[in-house]
Amino acid sequence: MHLEITKEYLATLKDLLDNGNVIKIQELLIELHPADIAALISELGDKYVKVLFDYLDDEVAVHVLVELEEDIRKDILADYDPETIVKRFINVMDSDDAADIINELPEQVRDDIVVLLNKSREEEAQDLISLLEFEEDSAGGLMAKEMIVVNINDTVSECIDEIRRQKEDVDVVYTVYVVDDNNVLNGIISMKQLVLSEPEVLIRDILETDITTVHVDTSAEEVGDMMRKYDLVVLPVVDDQKRLLGRITIDDVIDVIKEEAEEDYQLISGISEDIDPQDKVWTHSRARLPWLILGLFGGIAASKVIGAHEESIQIYPEMAFFIPLITAMAGNAGVQSSAIVVQSLAAKTYGKGTFLSKLIKESSVAIINGIICSAILLIYGFFFAKSLTTAMTISISLMSVILLASVLGFTIPILLNRLKIDPAQATGPFITTLNDIIGLAVYFLIGHGLYNMPL
Amino acid sequence: MHLEITKEYLATLKDLLDNGNVIKIQELLIELHPADIAALISELGDKYVKVLFDYLDDEVAVHVLVELEEDIRKDILADYDPETIVKRFINVMDSDDAADIINELPEQVRDDIVVLLNKSREEEAQDLISLLEFEEDSAGGLMAKEMIVVNINDTVSECIDEIRRQKEDVDVVYTVYVVDDNNVLNGIISMKQLVLSEPEVLIRDILETDITTVHVDTSAEEVGDMMRKYDLVVLPVVDDQKRLLGRITIDDVIDVIKEEAEEDYQLISGISEDIDPQDKVWTHSRARLPWLILGLFGGIAASKVIGAHEESIQIYPEMAFFIPLITAMAGNAGVQSSAIVVQSLAAKTYGKGTFLSKLIKESSVAIINGIICSAILLIYGFFFAKSLTTAMTISISLMSVILLASVLGFTIPILLNRLKIDPAQATGPFITTLNDIIGLAVYFLIGHGLYNMPL
Repeated sequence: MHLEITKEYLATLKDLLDNGNVIKIQELLIELHPADIAALISELGDKYVKVLFDYLDDEVAVHVLVELEEDIRKDILADYDPETIVKRFINVMDSDDAADIINELPEQVRDDIVVLLNKSREEEAQDLISLLEFEEDSAGGLMAKEMIVVNINDTVSECIDEIRRQKEDVDVVYTVYVVDDNNVLNGIISMKQLVLSEPEVLIRDILETDITTVHVDTSAEEVGDMMRKYDLVVLPVVDDQKRLLGRITIDDVIDVIKEEAEEDYQLISGISEDIDPQDKVWTHSRARLPWLILGLFGGIAASKVIGAHEESIQIYPEMAFFIPLITAMAGNAGVQSSAIVVQSLAAKTYGKGTFLSKLIKESSVAIINGIICSAILLIYGFFFAKSLTTAMTISISLMSVILLASVLGFTIPILLNRLKIDPAQATGPFITTLNDIIGLAVYFLIGHGLYNMPL
Repeated sequence: MHLEITKEYLATLKDLLDNGNVIKIQELLIELHPADIAALISELGDKYVKVLFDYLDDEVAVHVLVELEEDIRKDILADYDPETIVKRFINVMDSDDAADIINELPEQVRDDIVVLLNKSREEEAQDLISLLEFEEDSAGGLMAKEMIVVNINDTVSECIDEIRRQKEDVDVVYTVYVVDDNNVLNGIISMKQLVLSEPEVLIRDILETDITTVHVDTSAEEVGDMMRKYDLVVLPVVDDQKRLLGRITIDDVIDVIKEEAEEDYQLISGISEDIDPQDKVWTHSRARLPWLILGLFGGIAASKVIGAHEESIQIYPEMAFFIPLITAMAGNAGVQSSAIVVQSLAAKTYGKGTFLSKLIKESSVAIINGIICSAILLIYGFFFAKSLTTAMTISISLMSVILLASVLGFTIPILLNRLKIDPAQATGPFITTLNDIIGLAVYFLIGHGLYNMPL
C-alpha cells in the first residue's frame, strides 16, 4: 500500500538502524514497495543510505537501485567493483534500466562493464551493449529489449510456448510482437486475442496490423506526445527497415513528461538547467546565474533610460516614485501573455486562426485589463498624487505599458519558435527584462508629453 | 501512424470539404487515428467542425468526440437531442468518458439523459449513473466500470469464458480482478498467468494478492503520484469495505499529470485559473487580473517607499536610476528560490535535512551569486557612475537584496505549506511584489547610510 513517510516513521527506523535490530528492520522492509524503500533512503540522509541498502534482499535491492535518485545510486555503486555490479545488478535488471545506469557511471567503470558484457556470450549482454549506443533522450534510449516476439508463421500454441520460455525475463506482457523472417515488424497480437484463440490458429490469421510504431531516432519528447495522444501503454521501436528493435513502456514516458514539465517551470522562473534541491550549492549557483546577469545588464540599461531624464526627476521627483509600478506591471503582463503562448506551442494546441487574429485577441485581453488597472490607478492618483498631471501620466503610461508588454510577450515566443529556438528557453526573465526597459522608455515619453518635461 | 498537420494538409482538406468530395474525404479520414481527426477538427476552425464530423463513421465519431476539446464537443452535441446523444454516443463509450461528457452538458440536457438512463434496465446504464456522483478530480471521477471480474471460486476456464463474454465492452484487458461473493477485491490475475495456466486450475491457486488499490475518494493528484511511483498501468478502485468499484487506467492519469503541470506553470506566471488559448477574452482577463491588481497595489506601496526619500532623489537623482535594477534582481532571485521549493514540495522530494540546513544552503547560493553580480556592478559603477558612493551603494544594496529575496523566496512557500495553503498559488507575482518593496526599502536604507542622505 501507499506509504506516508512521517517524521515518527523515520525516527523509529533510524533507531532500529542505529541499534542494528536486524529482525525488526527486515520485518519492516518486507512490507514495502521498492519505490517506497527508495523514497525512505533519500529521506534518511547520507549516514544511513548504505546501512539500509545492505539490509535488502538481492532481488529487492535491484528494484530499489533503479528507483533511487541518480546521485545516491552512484554513491552506492561506488562501493562495488565492475564484476559485482554486472553480476549482482546489471544482469538481473530490465535492459532499459541497466543501460541508463551504466551510462551514469564514471567512464572507467563503464568501460570495464562493457568489456565484461562483451566477454559474455549471452544474448542479453549483446542486447544491452546495443542499447548503450543510443542518445538518452531518444526512443532508442528509452526502449527495452525484453519483449515477446513470435514469427508470423507460428501458431497460437507456439506463441504461448514462447511466453512460457521468457516468463522470467518479461515481467508484464502487454502485447506480443509478430515479425517475419527478417525481423520486420508485421503487427501485434493482444493478450486478450491470445487467450480467446484456439491453440492451432495461425498467428497470421489473428494479427492486428494497424499499429503505431516509432523510429529509433525519434526524440523522447515526441515519443511522450505520441503515447499520450494515442493512449498507448507500450510502443514498438523500429529502424529504417521497420525491423523491431525494442519497446517503450508508458512508465518511462511518464517520467519524461514530468521532467519536461519541471524543466519548463524552472525555465520560466529563471533557472537554466534542471536542478534538484539535493544538488550541490555550485550547481544551483550556475543554474541561476545566467538570468541574474541578464537581469543585471537589463537593470543597467534601465538606469541609462532613466538617466536620460535626470533633469525631469529633479524637477518632478514624483516620476521616480512610480518606476517600480511601471516595471512590475510590464513584467507581469508580459510573462502572463508569453506563458500562455509557450504552453500552447509546447502542447501543439496553438489552435485555429491566424497570427493576426490571435494578436487581436491577446490585445483585447490587455486592453480590458489595462483599462481596469489604469482606472484604479487614476482614482488613486486623483486623491493621493501631488498633481493631476502625475495621476494622468502614471495612468496613461500603465495602460500603454500593459498593452505593449502583452503584445511583446505574445509575439516573442512565436518569433523564437519560427526561428527554431525553444521559446521556453527565453521566456521568463528575458521577457521581464525587455519589458522593464521598454516600459520605462514609454513612461518617460508620456511624462515628457504631459509635464512638458525636459528631454 | 503519427500525423503531422501542415498548412498544406489543412488547405487540401478544406478544399475537399468545400467541394463536398465525399469519396476523397472518406479515403483520407479512414487512414487517421481518432486523436488525429480530433486535432484536425480543432485546427480547421469553426466553419468546418460540424461538416467534417458528419463525414465520420458512427464508431469513429464516438472516439473522435472523446478526444475533442471540451468547447468543440459541446458545440457538436448541442445539435443532438438527449435521446440521440444517449443512443449514438453515450451507450457505445467507455463509462469514464461517458460520465465526463454527461457532466459537461447543460443541466437540462444532463437531467434528461439521466432520466433516459434510469429508464434503461441495462447494467451499463446503472453503472454510468453511479459514476456521475463522484467528484471529477477524485479516483471515483477517473475510474471506468469496464473490467473483467471473476469470482475467487472460479477456474481459469470460467475466467476465459468471462473475458469472451465481455470482449466487446472491454477493449484492452490489462488484468483480471478477483472478488469474493461480497464483491470484495481479493487479488488479481495477470493475462500472462492466465495464458500459462491450465483450464482446470482454480483462480484462488494462482491469485496475486499483493496488489495496490486506491480508495474511491482519493484525489486525482494522489492517484497520479501513486501510479507514477509504482509504475502502474491500471489501478483498482475500492470503497471502505474494499469492494471493487472500478479501475483507473494510466492514459487518464497522464492527462491529470499534464494538466497539473500546466496549472503550476500558469500560477507562477501570474495566471490564476487554468486557461487555454481557445478560451474567451473575458476568461483570459479574469484569470490574469488578480495578479495584475496585486502588482498594482505593490507598485503603489513601492511609490510610498520611494516617496519617503523624495528629498534624497532630488539631491542624488542617480539613486533613482538604479531602482529598476534593484527591483528586477530582487524579483528574479526570489522567484528562482521559490520555484525550487514549490517544485520539490509538490514532488515530495523536499529531501533530507532540517529547515535550517536548507536555509543555509539556499543562502550560500544567494551569497555566491550575490557576490558575482555585485562585483560586476561595482566594476561598472567604478567606471561609469557619477560617484564612488553611488557605485558602493548600488553594489552593496544588490548583494543585500539578492540574499534577502532568496531567503524570503525560500521561506514563504514552506510557511504557506505548513499553513496548508498551496504554495504554488502564492509564488510567482506575490514573491516578486513583496521583494520589490523590501528591496527598495533596503536600497534607500543603505543609500541613506552611505550618502548621509536625508531620511
